[in-house]
Amino acid sequence: MAYGLLKGKKGIIFGALNDASIAWKVAERAHEEGAEIVLTNTPVACRMGTIDELAAKTGSTIIPADATSVEDLEMLFSEAQKVLGGQIDFVLHSCAMSANMRKKRTYDDLDYSLFEKTLDISAISFHKMIQVAKKMDAIAEYGSILALTYVASHRTFFGYNDMADAKSLLESIARSFGYIYGREKNVRINTVSQSPTFTTAGGGIKGFDGLYDFSDRMSPLGNASADECADYCVVMFSDLTKKVTMQTLFHDGGFSNMGMSLRGMTQYNKSFIDENRDENGKIIYG
Amino acid sequence: MAYGLLKGKKGIIFGALNDASIAWKVAERAHEEGAEIVLTNTPVACRMGTIDELAAKTGSTIIPADATSVEDLEMLFSEAQKVLGGQIDFVLHSCAMSANMRKKRTYDDLDYSLFEKTLDISAISFHKMIQVAKKMDAIAEYGSILALTYVASHRTFFGYNDMADAKSLLESIARSFGYIYGREKNVRINTVSQSPTFTTAGGGIKGFDGLYDFSDRMSPLGNASADECADYCVVMFSDLTKKVTMQTLFHDGGFSNMGMSLRGMTQYNKSFIDENRDENGKIIYG
Amino acid sequence: MAYGLLKGKKGIIFGALNDASIAWKVAERAHEEGAEIVLTNTPVACRMGTIDELAAKTGSTIIPADATSVEDLEMLFSEAQKVLGGQIDFVLHSCAMSANMRKKRTYDDLDYSLFEKTLDISAISFHKMIQVAKKMDAIAEYGSILALTYVASHRTFFGYNDMADAKSLLESIARSFGYIYGREKNVRINTVSQSPTFTTAGGGIKGFDGLYDFSDRMSPLGNASADECADYCVVMFSDLTKKVTMQTLFHDGGFSNMGMSLRGMTQYNKSFIDENRDENGKIIYG
Amino acid sequence: MAYGLLKGKKGIIFGALNDASIAWKVAERAHEEGAEIVLTNTPVACRMGTIDELAAKTGSTIIPADATSVEDLEMLFSEAQKVLGGQIDFVLHSCAMSANMRKKRTYDDLDYSLFEKTLDISAISFHKMIQVAKKMDAIAEYGSILALTYVASHRTFFGYNDMADAKSLLESIARSFGYIYGREKNVRINTVSQSPTFTTAGGGIKGFDGLYDFSDRMSPLGNASADECADYCVVMFSDLTKKVTMQTLFHDGGFSNMGMSLRGMTQYNKSFIDENRDENGKIIYG
Repeated sequence: MAYGLLKGKKGIIFGALNDASIAWKVAERAHEEGAEIVLTNTPVACRMGTIDELAAKTGSTIIPADATSVEDLEMLFSEAQKVLGGQIDFVLHSCAMSANMRKKRTYDDLDYSLFEKTLDISAISFHKMIQVAKKMDAIAEYGSILALTYVASHRTFFGYNDMADAKSLLESIARSFGYIYGREKNVRINTVSQSPTFTTAGGGIKGFDGLYDFSDRMSPLGNASADECADYCVVMFSDLTKKVTMQTLFHDGGFSNMGMSLRGMTQYNKSFIDENRDENGKIIYG
Repeated sequence: MAYGLLKGKKGIIFGALNDASIAWKVAERAHEEGAEIVLTNTPVACRMGTIDELAAKTGSTIIPADATSVEDLEMLFSEAQKVLGGQIDFVLHSCAMSANMRKKRTYDDLDYSLFEKTLDISAISFHKMIQVAKKMDAIAEYGSILALTYVASHRTFFGYNDMADAKSLLESIARSFGYIYGREKNVRINTVSQSPTFTTAGGGIKGFDGLYDFSDRMSPLGNASADECADYCVVMFSDLTKKVTMQTLFHDGGFSNMGMSLRGMTQYNKSFIDENRDENGKIIYG
Repeated sequence: MAYGLLKGKKGIIFGALNDASIAWKVAERAHEEGAEIVLTNTPVACRMGTIDELAAKTGSTIIPADATSVEDLEMLFSEAQKVLGGQIDFVLHSCAMSANMRKKRTYDDLDYSLFEKTLDISAISFHKMIQVAKKMDAIAEYGSILALTYVASHRTFFGYNDMADAKSLLESIARSFGYIYGREKNVRINTVSQSPTFTTAGGGIKGFDGLYDFSDRMSPLGNASADECADYCVVMFSDLTKKVTMQTLFHDGGFSNMGMSLRGMTQYNKSFIDENRDENGKIIYG
Repeated sequence: MAYGLLKGKKGIIFGALNDASIAWKVAERAHEEGAEIVLTNTPVACRMGTIDELAAKTGSTIIPADATSVEDLEMLFSEAQKVLGGQIDFVLHSCAMSANMRKKRTYDDLDYSLFEKTLDISAISFHKMIQVAKKMDAIAEYGSILALTYVASHRTFFGYNDMADAKSLLESIARSFGYIYGREKNVRINTVSQSPTFTTAGGGIKGFDGLYDFSDRMSPLGNASADECADYCVVMFSDLTKKVTMQTLFHDGGFSNMGMSLRGMTQYNKSFIDENRDENGKIIYG
């Protein structure tokens, strides 16, 4: 169902790869709500994925750009304003990659040039896109900028590796720049902290399916889907949330504020097969 | 501007006193967005305020009820379902009163029966309304329950007195019950942490206008108004935020994540008139 | 090993029942570090438990008092100052009881008079003891006041019931009063958020042993013991932590900042016996 | 006063420049408490400052090393173990520098190679030193690692620039590595979030003296001094805090949990000279 929440608004969406991407869903929903969109991703991702299909479906233009390159971002904001006919009202940043994870470097054996790359792609790119946009005055007054994050920025999840640090940095950038862009142009900057989601990126994380199940059972409303995340992003782009800024917005079925649910504990307790219990049925602690 | 976000939804709004009340604005906006509403407040407040005007404007029914009385709440949810023709989709709790503040009892001289009253009116009433509703199965699946709170629940503001503790308790109840009502009926429960607002209640707090100014200068987007808060509540009642629960949602122009703004500091520095500075213009610390 | 950290200091310790109590361990350690102590608990608890043994061991005086009674607290602070020969340097609050849990009332079926009792015993008693002490000027300048809390004040744990709300209220009181007592007398007020501990109180919580195991596997350093908690409390009573106030201090082996550990996940994954996995070994989500 | 809290312990202290440095005070206090210490700083800082004096006073050896260089860190941990005769029990990281601030680049005009440098010196160096130490097994079981941070990691302070992001990253590294080093060797890793302090680094921040005054008036116990910070670090290095890990420990007189103090507000209100008030004495909001 559509409400016209983004009627007349112009947006740029980073990071749609294929129809499992959250960014893909956001583009679809933003289009349904009346927005005109420019899609962007790295030139490689534009070739690898199926972004053309999304562009056709939503009547969008694709402008390939490397989000870590200031020059590419300048070109992007310049072209996007031409294509869309004016300043940009909203931006979605959905860019994250850990080269250390890809190379199977554990957190206590990081390659520091790869770590810099993780931070550059997953966090500093957010600063770059905002700084470029601000210098070009490319964001309309009362515009809305969002990035996707994960609760690992606050609490440690084994195997999430240097991406946790990147997400902390990303959320800090949202606060730091949210202050400056807010006071000068009323532009708001927030991050959406989403449940684990079966995207091409998410699905690749080690042990993802066990974590997905745990997260689902811990969350009273279950994990939030990519579609639901898109609904939430639309709301944060709309004029109804003009005074929300510098926040990490948890969109996770309640996970972030759960310590232990009955469903989670019941499942956990099943793990104690007979040999792990004493003669009275009590768990033998490990 | 209206989008039809609450078309076909039924809601109960607690705490509208007069047209300065946030609850008043929420009722207006919910009505504009297509909701049918029941208004409620204590019998005394219904007589004192101008709620009739709001009822007329929004085509709502008024059902007086004391939110600290389980019996009154049972009657309210029963009647409201009759009037609205079915289960309730959303509820706003906007009830807060500190008898200690009224009696000018400072925080280190609390009257404990008044403290209990503060907690009962401002926090436990939230539990009561949810427990009553749940027992009666009065809230529709995927319903949304909100209460208004203030950042003093997390950080101490002089003069906010026992209301700070009440707000902490209120937010805890939102988490505790959000878990239970979420897992059973997909009902979400959140609190909105709003900027200081010139309502009849807010305006009564000691030193309110200085605090309002400070908060306004600290917040990159300025203080959020009651109208803007109403927009945000509407969004949280809509189907677009179905997976957000157990959260304290800051709607405050960024205040909650500010340490010090340039505007705030500039104003603060004006306070150091010449006699508070040494011969080099340095502040003499007090 | 003892360092003389509390040499010459006078303290009151609430809530030692038997040698499994954290308060018991704190009394022992404070004594070892050179403090003189008054022990207190409700008259019933003083009879039921083995506090006499602790008094003998530590050369302490027992003064029974109901921490919810202002009169009893006045008597306590008056007598304690006589016994100890001067103002009090530190206080430990370790009082918590949920009558709703005892009566097996679930969180969506609370008895409200029992809820008030839970709050009174577990949280408001903390305010009462501080207010009484401040009015009597019973705490020495730079004194230190601690209460024990649990992370359920921030994140929901099934079965922790109205105690979660009580702990939120308790931590808020620590902030609110920490501000006032700090600015006037340099007295600091903090709460220690301790791992689940096998005390008489802790062990009584539904499903405690499963939770204890989960918490232990999640925490990189494992659960903190009562003895280790006593060490930490001693440090917070000492002169080395004079500028720490209004904080919730996590003493939990890292649990509070963990999302998922490898040990926790490995154990959790054992719960998926063959019938819960598809032919490829993937978990079938429930 | 000394208690022998660090008797027999061996430590490395990074970042002492001169006697205004917090690291300097920590070295002095650790020495008083019985520790043997190696001092380190960049070769340039070792020449510029007066670290020789500190070495003489505390009987320490100076080993110059660039904390951003893995090779230097390897040499440092190797040499330090030789000098001290065994594994290291505690480490203090007190390294922070923003080249953007030095070059007067504002946060919306960052030079990205300088930003990388800020992150490398102020945050990634912390990861490097831990990773190097862990690979060399240079930290003793139950060792304690600390870094100094500031509340700007959580809340934005104008003019703190990219250092806020560096501190967020630093605290995230403490969590991420605290998990791994904890589970494997019981080594704890925390950050101490200290009040603004008049060090050579702190004093250089734009508008520092106004902020220092504001922070002092906001904090019920006033700003924490470098000496008090040293006391607190000693406690965190001792055996009495063995189960505290992955935490940001606020050592700030209560500032972090304050919204507004009476002293702060009173001072702020002085800033409204007559022309900023209407005829009724009400503030005219700007």
